[in-house]
This record gives sequence, C-alpha cells and structure tokens, in this order.
Amino acid sequence: MEDSPRLHNFCAGPGALPLEVVRQVRHELPVYKNAGASVMEISHRSDHYTALEESSRAALRRLLGMGSEWHILFLGCGASMQFHQVPLNFLVPGGTADYVVTGIWAKKAHTEAARLGAAHVVASSEGASFTYIPTGWEDQVTGSYVHYTSNNTVCGTQYIETPGVKVPLVCDASSDFLSRPIDLDSHGLIYAGAQKNIGPAGVTVVLVRDDFLGMRNQPLPSMMDYGVHAAKLFNTPPVFAVYVVEKVLRWLEGRGGLEAIRQQNTEKAALLYGRIDATGFYRGTARKADRSMMNVTFRLPTPELEKRFVGEAEQHGLLALKGHRSVGGIRASIYNACPKGSVLELIEFMNYFEAKNG
Amino acid sequence: MEDSPRLHNFCAGPGALPLEVVRQVRHELPVYKNAGASVMEISHRSDHYTALEESSRAALRRLLGMGSEWHILFLGCGASMQFHQVPLNFLVPGGTADYVVTGIWAKKAHTEAARLGAAHVVASSEGASFTYIPTGWEDQVTGSYVHYTSNNTVCGTQYIETPGVKVPLVCDASSDFLSRPIDLDSHGLIYAGAQKNIGPAGVTVVLVRDDFLGMRNQPLPSMMDYGVHAAKLFNTPPVFAVYVVEKVLRWLEGRGGLEAIRQQNTEKAALLYGRIDATGFYRGTARKADRSMMNVTFRLPTPELEKRFVGEAEQHGLLALKGHRSVGGIRASIYNACPKGSVLELIEFMNYFEAKNG
Repeated sequence: MEDSPRLHNFCAGPGALPLEVVRQVRHELPVYKNAGASVMEISHRSDHYTALEESSRAALRRLLGMGSEWHILFLGCGASMQFHQVPLNFLVPGGTADYVVTGIWAKKAHTEAARLGAAHVVASSEGASFTYIPTGWEDQVTGSYVHYTSNNTVCGTQYIETPGVKVPLVCDASSDFLSRPIDLDSHGLIYAGAQKNIGPAGVTVVLVRDDFLGMRNQPLPSMMDYGVHAAKLFNTPPVFAVYVVEKVLRWLEGRGGLEAIRQQNTEKAALLYGRIDATGFYRGTARKADRSMMNVTFRLPTPELEKRFVGEAEQHGLLALKGHRSVGGIRASIYNACPKGSVLELIEFMNYFEAKNG
Repeated sequence: MEDSPRLHNFCAGPGALPLEVVRQVRHELPVYKNAGASVMEISHRSDHYTALEESSRAALRRLLGMGSEWHILFLGCGASMQFHQVPLNFLVPGGTADYVVTGIWAKKAHTEAARLGAAHVVASSEGASFTYIPTGWEDQVTGSYVHYTSNNTVCGTQYIETPGVKVPLVCDASSDFLSRPIDLDSHGLIYAGAQKNIGPAGVTVVLVRDDFLGMRNQPLPSMMDYGVHAAKLFNTPPVFAVYVVEKVLRWLEGRGGLEAIRQQNTEKAALLYGRIDATGFYRGTARKADRSMMNVTFRLPTPELEKRFVGEAEQHGLLALKGHRSVGGIRASIYNACPKGSVLELIEFMNYFEAKNG
C-alpha cells in the first residue's frame, strides 16, 4: 500500500529490493507497457519477455565482463536444487569432486553430492561452528571440480579471495552474487538464488562456461541438464521473477556497477563492524579476517538481551534482525539494496540499546 | 500502467489473471499490509508468508473437498520437472508405469519416465495428430500408476470423464486445474503449473495422497523427494507466485467454487464452439467429443487467412490467438479468468472476419 511505511529491512532472504524497483513494478500494473496485460499474463515466447531475458543477460555480461563463452540460465528451482544438479551433471562416474564445507548450506551441497558419488570434504570449519573460512587445502584438491560457498549466510563468513586451485571452481554465490566483482576465469559454474542480492525468490541464476558444460554427464533428465537450458528456452521460466531481476540489474548499473557497489558494501560493513567492536557489549561471531560484508552476525551478553534487542529494534522500524534459528544471536543482512541510511539507523539503535542495558 | 488498456487475453500460458487480483497486487505495493516491505522482500519463515501458504492450502481443501490425507506442495520448478520427479519417486526398481500419450506434453512426460525405467505407453493418439482422447485401454494397465494429461493445451482435447483404472492415477492438470471439480479418490498425485488457471508462472502445485506418497522410492535427492517437501518447508519457496495463487484461489471461491466455474467455462466453450460449427469457414481440430473447454483450437481455410486472422484480431484487442508453433492454426485459451465478454468479442470478430473473407 502507498500509505503504509517502508521500514529498515535486514532480512537474510528474501531480502530488501531497491525501492525504485518496487515502485516501478507497481507502476507497470495492471498493464505492462503496451502488452494489454500485466507482465504475469504474457507468454514466455512473447517479444516482451524475450526482451526482458535479453536485457538481463546483456546487463549481466556488462556487469561481470562476461564473454560469450559463458551461458546464462534463469532456472525456477531454487539454489537447493543446484546442490543436486551440479553433481548430477559434473560428478562423472568413477570421478571425484571436492567440497569446502563452511556453513550449513555448504554442508547440504556436499550431502546431496555424496548421494551421487565420491564427493570429498577437502576442508571444513564445522568443528569451529563455521566461524571461519579454512585455507591451506588448495593443494589437496584431486577431483574434477571444487564446490565452495562464497558467502555463508548463517554464520556470517565470506571468502575475501577466490580460492586458488587447479580445477574449475563451482560457486554457490547465492548470498553475495553481484555484491562485488567475480574472478570468472577460475570458475566453471556459478549459481545464485536471486532472493538476496538480485531479485525476489523464484529464480536461480546459473552461469556456466561452455568448456565446463562440455564435461557434463550425458544423457541426463532434460530438466536437470544444463545443456538443455543453455541451448534454448526449454520450459516456462519464472517470468515475473526474471522481470524483477532485470530491473535490479539495471539499478545496479545505475549505481556504478560491481566495483562501486563493492565500495558501498565495504563502507556499510565497516561502519557496522566498527560499532560492534567499539565496546565489549556486542561480540562478532565470525573470525575478523573472514567477516561477511553481507551478513553481519553478533551476540549480546545474554540470550534474553538478544531477544529484547530484536523486539525493540522492530518497534524502532528495524526488521528481521534475529539470527538464523540454528545458531541464534543477531544477524543484520546488509545486501546491495540495504541503504547506508538503514545501517546508520541500526548503529544508532545499538548505541541506544547498549546505553540502556550495558 | 494505470492508463494503458487491458485487452482480451487468450494466451495459452502464462494466461490471463482476474483483473481484481492484478489490481490487488498493485495495491499492496510498495508495502504489503503492515510488513514494512513488499511481499517480495519478506522472509518465507515470516508470519505473513506462513499465513499466505496456510490460506492457500485451506482454500484448496475447501474448493476440492480435500481431506488431510492429501499433502499440498508449492514447488518452484515448473511442471516439466514433474515429468522427471514423478517416475523418480514412483517408478520403483523392477516395476512399471503406464502412460497415456495424448499430446506433446504427455509425450514429454513419458520420455522422461522412460529414461528411468519401464514406462509403457498404454494408449496414444499420436497417429492421429493428438486430435482425440483414446479410450478402451483402461483394462490393459499393469503398472503401479497411470500418468495422464487431463487437458492437452496444444491440440485442444480434454478428458471429459476421469479414466477408470484399478491403480492410482497421476495427473498433469496444468491446463485445466480448478476449472471443474476433480475426482480425487482415483488419484495418487495431481500436479499443475500455476500459469494457466491459478496464478503466474513460477510455482507448481502438487497434491499427493499420503498412502501413495508412502510407496515412493527411498532414498532420493532431497529436493526431488515429495516426502521432504510434505514434511516441512524445506527451502525458499517462490513467495510472490504463492502470494498471487492465494488471491486467485479466494477469487475462485468468490465466484462460487468449482461447480460454478465449470458452468461458466462450459458456457464460454459452448458459445465459441457453436460459432466455429455454425459455418464451414472455421474448422475445429479436435474430435467433438473430446473438445477442451480450456483451449479451443481451429483452422481457417488457408494458412494465409490464419495469419491475417491473428494479426487483425490483435488490432481489435484480441491477443495471443496464434496456435502452438508445432501445429499452427488458431488457439483461443479461455481459462477461468477469461471473461465471457472476451469470448463474445472474439465471436463478433470471427463473424466480421468471415463476412469479409468467407
């Protein structure tokens, strides 16, 4: 509704979208351009939808500096399906793959791969509650790809550098996709559920390099075969979700692209971590060197105070600060679309709350 | 946009939505109720989204008279994934399943099943270009389920009666779901991509009966296991698509439910087929006894006239009447949300076009 206030949204996903994008969606209802119907009601074979996919692909190529050797797929299944689909395509019979387990999503990815074949855990931080990103494992890689999770939404860690390995990387980039530039050359495949940085829930973007695609198992069930989707629009895509993604990509270009958004994200994260570290009242949960710029996780002195913090924050218009149910604590997700102003409001509330309870 | 005209939408899918629903979506942007954010930006674990799923399930149970022995799933993958997922779950090792092939989608369902095991074609109308629904095969069923396609979108045929067989039916109801009551007792599983009768593209509704679910293969990849999704909200669902589905279901209840919508659909189809049959200029392509109430397919005397018909119709505000690219001709999709007024406009145009060219 127009008269209901928009609040500060720190939801871990589905996360905040740029207000301009949401307003534009509203503006294009109940009729999209000259289509005679809303974007929800047009054929996925129509010129209107074809233009939306083409515009999205072109924007992605510009943003990432991505050449024609990369296929760009918009799949409807959610990133969790990729945990199965990646090894189904690329864990060849008799072969192996390596998994870096840095969080509950990385662990799920490994679990699904291990159902299909020899998926080795080459490194894990599970013994330390996923509070850091392991290093020093890179030379132990023996499989045909390495799967890693570039940002760990639950525990708030992130790879600062792309792992240096001799085989293609497969990256679950769901929670930091397009928050910074990507070293494409190291990767064979990158996937991201849209609902954190680039759109609403309902579409997963898959980038797959042509030479890596050529190494997949054959034959595969049609819907599970990346090659089928790379060759043509195979089935009805999630039209509305792609439509919103296209707007977010253009918004991102308007903000200056990936180097600019990285600087903005770095600044937001530095402000928030600075406040956490300023006193002993708040305690960051991730190792400092591996702190995520997307999901800032911290604790208060007691679970009771954390509960009160989340409740009072909501009353101050600061939404969804509760940590993931598996770990508790506080989590502020500050994706691309989270304005610096929201971070400053949160910091102000943290000051107020500490003064009252510290 | 508010000032751009909505036209008569005969798209085969994604198809027309009720105008009331589209207007309500607009009204709930940029903020959904008191959520402080749009529905695209709220957690799928939030009370708001939980209420949307619960309301959708309750409406489906009321509309279909469906008891608690049925699970209701909202999956993000598209009906084409069901072509793979159904046999992966229910085509047990050493067992067989029967497929009735009545159109290109039914054939794709069989093709995917045959990759996994012994999927028999128990009947097919492919030899007659899918212009009819085969009968007389019911006693030849030997497998653990029979897969059929209740309505065939491309060629415009539909089962008038539910097939009578001794094993559970699995139905692809994508293009006539909730257009009429369903004989639930005959079925083990029913699936439908939302984008024809019940919502936008991006969500597939799966109804699965608990005793049938118990017969599935185990273990399965998590995302492919209906039991995983029946047990809990496993991964991020397509929030926005479910949100729109919920509105369509309540709209459907407001129209009087499935018996009432069947009558409305029957009337619309009778008007249109009546016009087709009134002269020799238009020729219906499906056998009369098997004509679809959802997708009305017909030809004109020449392909040139058909092309002109589609083009001139569009100028008259009648959209998306071109037949499926695999068969040509004309197709008018008159799903639940297509108003009788649109059908009357089409008939008027057909009269005009015949008078000019007949």
